Amino acid sequence: MAKVTLEDIVSLCKRRGFIYQGSEIYGGLAGTWDYGPLGAVLKRNIVNEWLKFFVDGWDDMYLIDSAILMNPKVWEASGHADTFHDPLVECSNCGSRFREDQVDAGKCPNCGKAKTFGKPRQFNMMFKTHIGPVDDEKSISYLRPETAQGMFTNFKNIVDSFSPDLPFGLAQVGRNFRNEISPRDFIFRAREFEIMEFEWFLAEKDWEKYFEKWRGDMHSWFRKLGLDKDRVKEIEVPASDRAHYSKRTIDFYYDFPSLGFDELAGLAYRTDFDLKNHQEHSGKNLEYRPKDGSKPFIPHVIEPTFGVDRHVMAVISNSYSEDEQDGEKRIFLKLPAHLAPVKVAVFPLLKNKPELTKKAREVYKMLKKENEAGMLGPRTTGTVAWDDNGNIGKRYRRQDEIGTPHTITIDFQTLEDNTVTVRSRDTTDQERVRVNEVSKKLS
Amino acid sequence: MAKVTLEDIVSLCKRRGFIYQGSEIYGGLAGTWDYGPLGAVLKRNIVNEWLKFFVDGWDDMYLIDSAILMNPKVWEASGHADTFHDPLVECSNCGSRFREDQVDAGKCPNCGKAKTFGKPRQFNMMFKTHIGPVDDEKSISYLRPETAQGMFTNFKNIVDSFSPDLPFGLAQVGRNFRNEISPRDFIFRAREFEIMEFEWFLAEKDWEKYFEKWRGDMHSWFRKLGLDKDRVKEIEVPASDRAHYSKRTIDFYYDFPSLGFDELAGLAYRTDFDLKNHQEHSGKNLEYRPKDGSKPFIPHVIEPTFGVDRHVMAVISNSYSEDEQDGEKRIFLKLPAHLAPVKVAVFPLLKNKPELTKKAREVYKMLKKENEAGMLGPRTTGTVAWDDNGNIGKRYRRQDEIGTPHTITIDFQTLEDNTVTVRSRDTTDQERVRVNEVSKKLS
Repeated sequence: MAKVTLEDIVSLCKRRGFIYQGSEIYGGLAGTWDYGPLGAVLKRNIVNEWLKFFVDGWDDMYLIDSAILMNPKVWEASGHADTFHDPLVECSNCGSRFREDQVDAGKCPNCGKAKTFGKPRQFNMMFKTHIGPVDDEKSISYLRPETAQGMFTNFKNIVDSFSPDLPFGLAQVGRNFRNEISPRDFIFRAREFEIMEFEWFLAEKDWEKYFEKWRGDMHSWFRKLGLDKDRVKEIEVPASDRAHYSKRTIDFYYDFPSLGFDELAGLAYRTDFDLKNHQEHSGKNLEYRPKDGSKPFIPHVIEPTFGVDRHVMAVISNSYSEDEQDGEKRIFLKLPAHLAPVKVAVFPLLKNKPELTKKAREVYKMLKKENEAGMLGPRTTGTVAWDDNGNIGKRYRRQDEIGTPHTITIDFQTLEDNTVTVRSRDTTDQERVRVNEVSKKLS
Repeated sequence: MAKVTLEDIVSLCKRRGFIYQGSEIYGGLAGTWDYGPLGAVLKRNIVNEWLKFFVDGWDDMYLIDSAILMNPKVWEASGHADTFHDPLVECSNCGSRFREDQVDAGKCPNCGKAKTFGKPRQFNMMFKTHIGPVDDEKSISYLRPETAQGMFTNFKNIVDSFSPDLPFGLAQVGRNFRNEISPRDFIFRAREFEIMEFEWFLAEKDWEKYFEKWRGDMHSWFRKLGLDKDRVKEIEVPASDRAHYSKRTIDFYYDFPSLGFDELAGLAYRTDFDLKNHQEHSGKNLEYRPKDGSKPFIPHVIEPTFGVDRHVMAVISNSYSEDEQDGEKRIFLKLPAHLAPVKVAVFPLLKNKPELTKKAREVYKMLKKENEAGMLGPRTTGTVAWDDNGNIGKRYRRQDEIGTPHTITIDFQTLEDNTVTVRSRDTTDQERVRVNEVSKKLS
């Protein structure tokens, strides 16, 4: 099969209703994306699987959901106000700003004047806004650039409400914002994006043990998503490239179409940097008091982080397949069944034969009910689709492209012996199955 | 029972880990709230039930997930740039702004000077930010004040990808932001809040029929949440109070503690106002082309809207109960079982008896597994909790306050006959049940 490009993925996502450009009818808004019906469900499935794998399965993991707007002091304590910068050069003629590599030609890309750029200056990547009626220094706030600080600022609340023993985790899935100068590569580098992550609080002496534990679990997670083993690799981040607070960081790279290997997730040992700084800036005691009466201390933290949108992009990329059927190229998404937004599609062979459509509606309604009762797979959030639009070949193509694992066709034989044709997406093999055995066959 | 106040609710929510003030360790950020572990799951349960009720159950409802940051032209077309205002007066001495009713005394509440206020001026309630490296007029964008516009701007995308027949719906659940001058009443009027809503596109002639249909379904929804019938009432919004685009609006009020009846949800007939304006402003054709070849037209819209945070507040308020047990006041949350964040809690009678805790761990692990397999109720997202902290009475109180429908105690008799005590939250009745029949008893 020809090498898949990012353009193939973007095109499929738009055509079939996974992901559209944000504010598209107005020419878009750079770095924003809208999830269409299939993308929204695929994303929800990935997030739900993550919650099942990393949160629900554990005794000591607490899921929270904190606000996007936070007191600006949070970002002073975290270091974002001072260090979350991109260096930019400014044109002295028109005031436009650019990354240094964008003005290699020496002329301003905006006004065209040459030699107008001085030394790069630091530009903060947090989106700024004002809270309350007056726009002044005191009312400045920021859209959070990461969900992590919501966990640190709630550390004391959780300890007060739940008295957990160390180690324990605080998890969160939520929207984040970064004013990227050059948003690019589809949903890979956007200005608005989702993160799922947790902070695992522990005693300093335990950090290496749990670093290894979560490292192993992250690999199991990627396998659970069906990502090819040779398309995921670990990158040990050298000290010079690590965030200022981290003593060790491993990035997990995925081999994306066109981009090649790039970041999908990360595992960082953040030491006690965040809680210590929040204690200093807030004046609140953020020490953990062991129940055995030993000396209180500020816990250290291991942080596994996962980019939700990048996960969606990896899962779609990993599933994107082409083969030849009857001399024609076929595109199909080999999505794992538990992630597929449509679990099964039901077709009447012909649209204009009432006896066929009537029977097909019956089968459709039965499967919908069985799906709601969880009989087509555990905790499934995909739907049962109805499709009578166009000839069968066209309908197969449509379902193949959105990754529907099975399609069911009701034909004239169905009216005689109550069997239907079940077609498998990956093999295109067809099999006749009795109507009352379809859900067993699918699950 | 004494009349429940909003303060009772706020206090319980903080104490037990449902909802905390946003950025609390920094003195908060007015109008923002962080959901703790129990609140996050309760909210997720309400949202999941809503998706099941209004989205998954229908053939023609499409869930999307659009960006919070949108092209500013969206808000020109929607009318928000021009009309989404609060009138404020400004102090000519210190520049502070206030709602007119806040300066009835005639003195500035900030600088104390008298007679400094002129006529009220319009203040836009959208949060403003700048996208890209330059802060100028051209780079202004807003945090969305409603999710609805994400559905209207994607109308054409959905029609292109899915060719749905009218009527059909676009649904969305997401975060919104309004720069309220006086955020108040806990999560009732916050600056950051969540909405679940859908736009039901139809032919103009059908609007009354579907208005009535969704009106009925909204009442069924409130019943599904367990809200008392006499605490929900309809308010027909008179023309003078309706949004400029609406030809009919019904608000659904809930009788909140301390606040009394106030808005929980709304049902609006928005006519073709939004699509028409987006067509004008974007220059894109947003007409719907009937498949029978009849004349294309711009669909009209019915919009049922639900405040997620207000739903959380209504469900907790509705469940908040007090009675007397053994001469002491007891607080308990009568949450419907399908919404409860903890489905069942497991206690070893005594913490320091290894044989009891060992057996209790076994029961706990069994129930956790059964819960994951959906045996404690369909599509449940609550957890099984372990609690060995403090005496049994204290543990009962804790579980009662967070609305856990059942608690299970492992005692010495368990070691002899493999039965446990199952206690019901609402009646406090206890019953001995065989271990292998517990999940059947609970579901």
